[in-house]
Amino acid sequence: PRPAPYCFSFREELSMLETAMFAICKVFHKYCNVEGNTCKLKKPELKELINNELPQFARQMQDSWTLDQLFTNVDEDGDLQISFQEFITLFSMVIVTCYKAYVHD
Amino acid sequence: PRPAPYCFSFREELSMLETAMFAICKVFHKYCNVEGNTCKLKKPELKELINNELPQFARQMQDSWTLDQLFTNVDEDGDLQISFQEFITLFSMVIVTCYKAYVHD
Repeated sequence: PRPAPYCFSFREELSMLETAMFAICKVFHKYCNVEGNTCKLKKPELKELINNELPQFARQMQDSWTLDQLFTNVDEDGDLQISFQEFITLFSMVIVTCYKAYVHD
Repeated sequence: PRPAPYCFSFREELSMLETAMFAICKVFHKYCNVEGNTCKLKKPELKELINNELPQFARQMQDSWTLDQLFTNVDEDGDLQISFQEFITLFSMVIVTCYKAYVHD
């Protein structure tokens, strides 16, 4: 079963997890390209988002693999743009490594 | 290619996205059961996390489907516990609906 849309607008006080969810939506929306009712990132926008918002990850990217490889991996439907769903797949990959570092810290 | 662990400790100022990542790790860790070096949620802990941190989602759960169905869906390896990776799969499902509401707001 798919959950119904998660609405914030009517609530003032958000939990820590809701605040984090809201922030992730805000960040994606800040960099994405809005065409009609689709909001997606092209390669330059993904690069800008990563450089500004995930500097640690951006530095790793220079060492191990390029933006092109990352973009191809994340662009699951191959439309040369990154949807929010595809962005969250990337985000999930990064946050899992983040939790490993968090637990060891 | 898998990214290396994403470390925060040495950085003072986090970006909005890093702050959100850090908060998600913190919330999971607050509710999880630490046994040796595994950190997982049992069903009561997942329920408590959802009730406290995703109240909107908790209300939906009462209407459409039960915690048991959710737990079974999320517990991909069937060990009756929710790892961080499995939790992030649930989180991804919820945040995608959240973004739909965000764009329409």
